[in-house]
Amino acid sequence: MALEDLHRLSAAEAARLIREGAVTSEQLVAACLDRIAETDEQIQAWEFLDPDYALAQARAADELRLSGRAIGPLHGVPVAVKDIFDTADMPTERGSPLYAGRTPSRDSAVVARLRAAGALILGKTVTTEFAFLTPGKTRNPHHPDHTPGGSSSGSAAAVAAGMVPLAVGSQTNGSTIRPAAFCGIVGFKPTHGLIPRSGMLQTSRTLDHVGLFARTIDDIALLAEELAGYDERDPDTRPRARIPFSAAAAAEPPLPPMLAFVKTPIWERADDDTRAGFGELIEALGDRVEEVELFPSAAEAWSWQRAIMEAEMAANLEREYDKGRDMLSEGLRRQIERGREVRAVDYQRALSRIGPLSESFAELFEQRYDAILTPAAPGAAPRGLDTTGDPSFCTLWTYCGMPAISLPLLQAENGLPIGVQLVGQREADARLLRTAKWLAAKLAQSE
Amino acid sequence: MALEDLHRLSAAEAARLIREGAVTSEQLVAACLDRIAETDEQIQAWEFLDPDYALAQARAADELRLSGRAIGPLHGVPVAVKDIFDTADMPTERGSPLYAGRTPSRDSAVVARLRAAGALILGKTVTTEFAFLTPGKTRNPHHPDHTPGGSSSGSAAAVAAGMVPLAVGSQTNGSTIRPAAFCGIVGFKPTHGLIPRSGMLQTSRTLDHVGLFARTIDDIALLAEELAGYDERDPDTRPRARIPFSAAAAAEPPLPPMLAFVKTPIWERADDDTRAGFGELIEALGDRVEEVELFPSAAEAWSWQRAIMEAEMAANLEREYDKGRDMLSEGLRRQIERGREVRAVDYQRALSRIGPLSESFAELFEQRYDAILTPAAPGAAPRGLDTTGDPSFCTLWTYCGMPAISLPLLQAENGLPIGVQLVGQREADARLLRTAKWLAAKLAQSE
Repeated sequence: MALEDLHRLSAAEAARLIREGAVTSEQLVAACLDRIAETDEQIQAWEFLDPDYALAQARAADELRLSGRAIGPLHGVPVAVKDIFDTADMPTERGSPLYAGRTPSRDSAVVARLRAAGALILGKTVTTEFAFLTPGKTRNPHHPDHTPGGSSSGSAAAVAAGMVPLAVGSQTNGSTIRPAAFCGIVGFKPTHGLIPRSGMLQTSRTLDHVGLFARTIDDIALLAEELAGYDERDPDTRPRARIPFSAAAAAEPPLPPMLAFVKTPIWERADDDTRAGFGELIEALGDRVEEVELFPSAAEAWSWQRAIMEAEMAANLEREYDKGRDMLSEGLRRQIERGREVRAVDYQRALSRIGPLSESFAELFEQRYDAILTPAAPGAAPRGLDTTGDPSFCTLWTYCGMPAISLPLLQAENGLPIGVQLVGQREADARLLRTAKWLAAKLAQSE
Repeated sequence: MALEDLHRLSAAEAARLIREGAVTSEQLVAACLDRIAETDEQIQAWEFLDPDYALAQARAADELRLSGRAIGPLHGVPVAVKDIFDTADMPTERGSPLYAGRTPSRDSAVVARLRAAGALILGKTVTTEFAFLTPGKTRNPHHPDHTPGGSSSGSAAAVAAGMVPLAVGSQTNGSTIRPAAFCGIVGFKPTHGLIPRSGMLQTSRTLDHVGLFARTIDDIALLAEELAGYDERDPDTRPRARIPFSAAAAAEPPLPPMLAFVKTPIWERADDDTRAGFGELIEALGDRVEEVELFPSAAEAWSWQRAIMEAEMAANLEREYDKGRDMLSEGLRRQIERGREVRAVDYQRALSRIGPLSESFAELFEQRYDAILTPAAPGAAPRGLDTTGDPSFCTLWTYCGMPAISLPLLQAENGLPIGVQLVGQREADARLLRTAKWLAAKLAQSE
């Protein structure tokens, strides 16, 4: 492979070549920086990028490898980090002028784990304002007049454009799955509490998840394996054995998986492209998919998710609202104001329904299905840069804290990618990746 | 000891004599029933009591012992249970006509653990309405015109009157420490989450605790050791090693303990008896006590506790309010109505302050003090049966989930008992009992 094409490597390939000494981290990072120089004027994925510092980190990684000391599974691999994760060596501005120039004193748990695995932080990627709806400057790499989705806009766009093999983002409603779908890459939102959020902007403890972006499912597995695990500073994580994501993603399912096609109560929002695409998909899958109707209580998840998100955002952004509301977008101000009116009884009711609703899904998985098959978004990335699109096909799964992955398996009439979402049982994240690999391979065969 | 005096035995003594065969459970229970027959017409501690069934349980315990099978630490010992803990063999009416005649299908965790330890459930004791403020029929054993305190009114009165050596109650604000103090016995509210609450009426997950009553600290230790521990149905319990409460209570402190006398921001509510009593106590303790000022944020705990209790009671009693509000007391109706108005942001703020505030206390304990010394109530049991008295000297410690014990060490001018409250560090429950034993012994010496 020519040096100028190294940015196209998957993270797994890049890590292997660096480990073997066939490629240096500096060569890889230089290729990524060249790609950024070439494309980012149009795409605008980065909030902070210091090429010299990135190259210095890469050279340090190369020296470490040459010294013969043990290196991690991501040694020398660059990763992009959404600008809501604290980094001790770069600003973390949360997409808001209220935090312009803020440089935290310590790394977030995710960044610390990336560095411990040998990865280097290439830079910080554009987020919407406080990871909510008001867009940043990023454009869709497939078409500059279309949104990349959000809130992890820069992370998704950077990976899709080949600027970096891996990126980290977040999801509180649809902020990972939606931009991954719109940008035509793989996005993964694990089970709630699987990856610690300490040092990440908190907008909603109940709904915030770390999200991952890559161009292959294997790369998602590689990254997830390094990031999952207990952190005493995130009370929603639990001590557990290391999850063998990579081995699971590489394994054959013991039996051919069975998928439950779930239209969800908001199917009427799915556009013609999505309906046509899912029609073909269902046909290609034959007896490996069955349409399943959700129980009626699932329809309430959207209003429960909204009550929690509004109430918790209002609590978490109280200081920003009280001291700096003039510097908040009108959309965010209104969201906080709605949140301030939510009553504690309604908030508690919404919280109390998460357990029973996820339990109902658990039965579905135990009885017959390996994963739920459902759209990632109503359609391809909409035209225009003033919204990041509709997150509602993610809402139910985020509310339930179930693992979800978006795969770039379909295409709209206009050529833009359409994501297919697979949703798994809580805590069965590795199995979901295995099922996703099977699905991707099955469809590649049938083409 | 004469058979008719067996009801005066401590639980530890009774368990030993039964184990050794010197006394049968039937003799012990008969003595308790005689004592109840003698005194309960005036005191009214019981909501449900079936003497024949109690004796039948005792005879079964005696037969089991004679059969040579292994017996538990509380074998044959009668325990009184507040009528908010589910019992599969007795009604559980929660102090409300809405639940008249309700008999649950399974035992609460506490009742199941009592039975597993060999104890027998003597009967169900009077609770205020839904363990809140509206009194039941119970009177103070020291004076029938005075309240026994609440909400665990019957449990405290039954132990104080010698009807039963042990009782179980609960505390959401001051429902164990206050009645123990008013009735002149030992009351213990452990660290939040130490004793599981599944099958107990839930009014506030954040604030509800199981509470224990006995006439000696050793008996509290014996009971706590059987009841503490993880229960998968109570999400606030955690797996942990068995806590050696009895051994800790029996041990000498390695160094003479140091107490922090804390007046709290509501000291002006303490009456003359309490002020005089604490004056003497401080003098008797000499260099083993120092007065400590609380940090200013502690003063807000009372309003935070109120916000949580109102909001969570409104959520937990929503069905009772919606379907049966005519059968609720006006006081409870108003409490629920206030709770329905609490905003989610204020509720969340109140929740979010528990951790930092308990942490501030942790520093106090780590630096210098073994326990906090503070009143259990503003004074002795007030005259009148229309309120259960003021819980406010318990509020701060309940809010923080810290372990607290009330010891009957002082007396009012009118002869009624006054409780002294010791509060320990979270999770240091056994050490608190050891400090309490030291304090009781120290004052017995100095008398």
